[in-house]
Amino acid sequence: MLMVEIRKAIHVNEAICRVMSSAITGPKTYVAIEDSLSYYLGEDLLADHDVPAFDRSPYDGFAIRAEDTLDAGKGYPIRLEVIGEIGAGSVHEGEVQANQAVRIMTGAQIPNGCNAVIMLEHVEMLEHDWKTFIQIDRRLTTGENITRTGEDTRQGETLVKKGTYINPGVMALLATCGYKQVPVIQKPKVGIISTGSELLAVDAALEPGKIRDSNSYMLLGQIERAGGIPLLLGQFKDDFTLCYNQVVDALDKVDILLTTGGVSVGDYDYIPAILDKLKARVLFNKVRMRPGSVTTVAEIKGKLLFGLSGNPSSCYVGFELFTRPVIRTYLQSNYPFMRRVVVQLGAAFTRPNPFDRFVRGKLQYENGQTIAMPVGLDKPNIVTSLAEADILIMLPGGAEVYEKEMEVTAILLEDQTGTTMDSFISKQVIH
Amino acid sequence: MLMVEIRKAIHVNEAICRVMSSAITGPKTYVAIEDSLSYYLGEDLLADHDVPAFDRSPYDGFAIRAEDTLDAGKGYPIRLEVIGEIGAGSVHEGEVQANQAVRIMTGAQIPNGCNAVIMLEHVEMLEHDWKTFIQIDRRLTTGENITRTGEDTRQGETLVKKGTYINPGVMALLATCGYKQVPVIQKPKVGIISTGSELLAVDAALEPGKIRDSNSYMLLGQIERAGGIPLLLGQFKDDFTLCYNQVVDALDKVDILLTTGGVSVGDYDYIPAILDKLKARVLFNKVRMRPGSVTTVAEIKGKLLFGLSGNPSSCYVGFELFTRPVIRTYLQSNYPFMRRVVVQLGAAFTRPNPFDRFVRGKLQYENGQTIAMPVGLDKPNIVTSLAEADILIMLPGGAEVYEKEMEVTAILLEDQTGTTMDSFISKQVIH
Repeated sequence: MLMVEIRKAIHVNEAICRVMSSAITGPKTYVAIEDSLSYYLGEDLLADHDVPAFDRSPYDGFAIRAEDTLDAGKGYPIRLEVIGEIGAGSVHEGEVQANQAVRIMTGAQIPNGCNAVIMLEHVEMLEHDWKTFIQIDRRLTTGENITRTGEDTRQGETLVKKGTYINPGVMALLATCGYKQVPVIQKPKVGIISTGSELLAVDAALEPGKIRDSNSYMLLGQIERAGGIPLLLGQFKDDFTLCYNQVVDALDKVDILLTTGGVSVGDYDYIPAILDKLKARVLFNKVRMRPGSVTTVAEIKGKLLFGLSGNPSSCYVGFELFTRPVIRTYLQSNYPFMRRVVVQLGAAFTRPNPFDRFVRGKLQYENGQTIAMPVGLDKPNIVTSLAEADILIMLPGGAEVYEKEMEVTAILLEDQTGTTMDSFISKQVIH
Repeated sequence: MLMVEIRKAIHVNEAICRVMSSAITGPKTYVAIEDSLSYYLGEDLLADHDVPAFDRSPYDGFAIRAEDTLDAGKGYPIRLEVIGEIGAGSVHEGEVQANQAVRIMTGAQIPNGCNAVIMLEHVEMLEHDWKTFIQIDRRLTTGENITRTGEDTRQGETLVKKGTYINPGVMALLATCGYKQVPVIQKPKVGIISTGSELLAVDAALEPGKIRDSNSYMLLGQIERAGGIPLLLGQFKDDFTLCYNQVVDALDKVDILLTTGGVSVGDYDYIPAILDKLKARVLFNKVRMRPGSVTTVAEIKGKLLFGLSGNPSSCYVGFELFTRPVIRTYLQSNYPFMRRVVVQLGAAFTRPNPFDRFVRGKLQYENGQTIAMPVGLDKPNIVTSLAEADILIMLPGGAEVYEKEMEVTAILLEDQTGTTMDSFISKQVIH
């Protein structure tokens, strides 16, 4: 009994650096464009043609020759004959001559001979001798209201970089450039093993001293949100050899392995012994932060194992700070970290704390200010507050106290765009 | 030729109000907890038991009787006999007596007779006569380091309201409360018909005057991001009756119908005639905003049809402002609108504009400030800028010019938490 392992706590940023230096990247694969939302681009997205591919009209109106309007002015309209009309997708045959105009729809190609477009609302129409004319009472300049070939982008240009999150706008570009199949990075398989003989299945009736396993499902959601494919691998057995074999089997099946529970500074915890037997390289097993201080990360033959706390909040924060950027690195994201915003603190934290704190909170918008409002009681056992959280409020440790309305930094949990490690671990956290 | 329909432009907020007054809600269904991420709760999530369900230890340490430590102090340690140990999930048999202690793990149930926990690090261990003792040199108070039954939540309490987005934290609560099957709102089927004879399939080679259909795939991504199930229904045919039948068929299959293209103020546009023949109630067909002014929304037998512009940016903004809250209302979200943040404008907009503008932008974080940086050239035809956008910067129309570093409001495109209509259309937009 009572073998208490001595653990050396390191700073959050040091922990992040150690994890990231062992993070691996995933291979490329292809998915249909319809299924590509939320993947990460596996190659630069290149323009396969100039965009637009031809001079075109941004408006409904008339394609004309600017030189024909030289004498036009208020009260001195000039008159052009409308010799045809073209919808988007059609092409006008032949060359437009002096004092001629072509009715043109938004997006249609500018006819040969024309060099300007006048909007429909800016002309007067008239019929004469079975012909149609327009009257224009202003002078147009060459190129006016024409979207030029390649104005948006040039053929061969990189439109979106490899490693970019595919959002609806990227999908539009993929379609424009003919990507029926999209090169993406394969999503990592992330296994979850829960540990603790107190854990019941989600559909089990409660028993004295026991609780239902909530961390597994929370992690499942966090993995999916981060972009991985979660695999529930069940619970640790009550025997060291069985547990060891479970970890060995799991490491065969997954790219990243998570355990939750059983990494406290007490007994009954097989994880250190399993890591030992696996000859794993332990990157750290304690972090100077609250919650989540008891987080172990180890590397085994290139794969990372995250020993997350059994406390829901510690597990949650440990995952978001350490596992999420590893998943995003596997996805080859250029911005594997969550972005932050500067916000007003919505409540005071007047007891100084030597540890960096990551307080679950909620962005609120009041009287033109963005407020970071802590949710729940900020105890590690409080599950209910996790449901409301969409930010982690960063309160760097030290002698400082935090008053209401102070400016603080909040990490956006729902962020997809992301940021770099340098930006994430800037001196807002280190102290 | 040249039947130009007269359209009356209305304000953005008026348009939003009209759309929302016709938005319908979807039915309840059930999904497995593993699949519940990103659905909306179809019922209040109720605590099926007190959380925690028993007094428990938040730390590894020793469960004791506080009264036994009355005489303890620095240099005057008292000594307790350790009579057993309990891991999480185990229950100590019998009642703990005076001057006894039980070794207890994080999460384990407090043994009968005990009323405080001392952390492992705060005791000295010693062995004597084959017995184990701990020495304590401080006084503990009754209830110290005990997490009380129901401290987190009480049985029967509503933990999460119906209409809440299911995030990883909500999943943890669902598991805690035994929801193997989760009541959720069915996702709406949202059909997309693209119109325009200029449109080529995504895998087609380019032809003069034509472009590949990018809006359909962009909308597909936007629908998915909003929480709907997208259905690509192909392109409009070149014949009025065929188009009419396409719309009728589509309305049978989907809950919400989108068309893109063919709603400009020009010819070649069957949508108004189709709406007429369907006896649709047109809510509006022009909005005082840029981009997206040419947006038509109509209601047909309780279903909404959105006639979005063929211009990518107009289509994008029209969807986010009008269709997204309708999808979120179908999902019974309590907060169907995107949240906003107050940010510093990253570039000047010095030409006043009578129209409310929604400029595609990107949140940046610089020197402790959150900056809203416009992306691309902000012309309606610029597709490339949509890929980078994660905010819409709101620039209310009027005589005002917008200088760099001014405070403006930005709509968060990736936001899942959401806000209410009242909050969304607050006076930041109306002027």
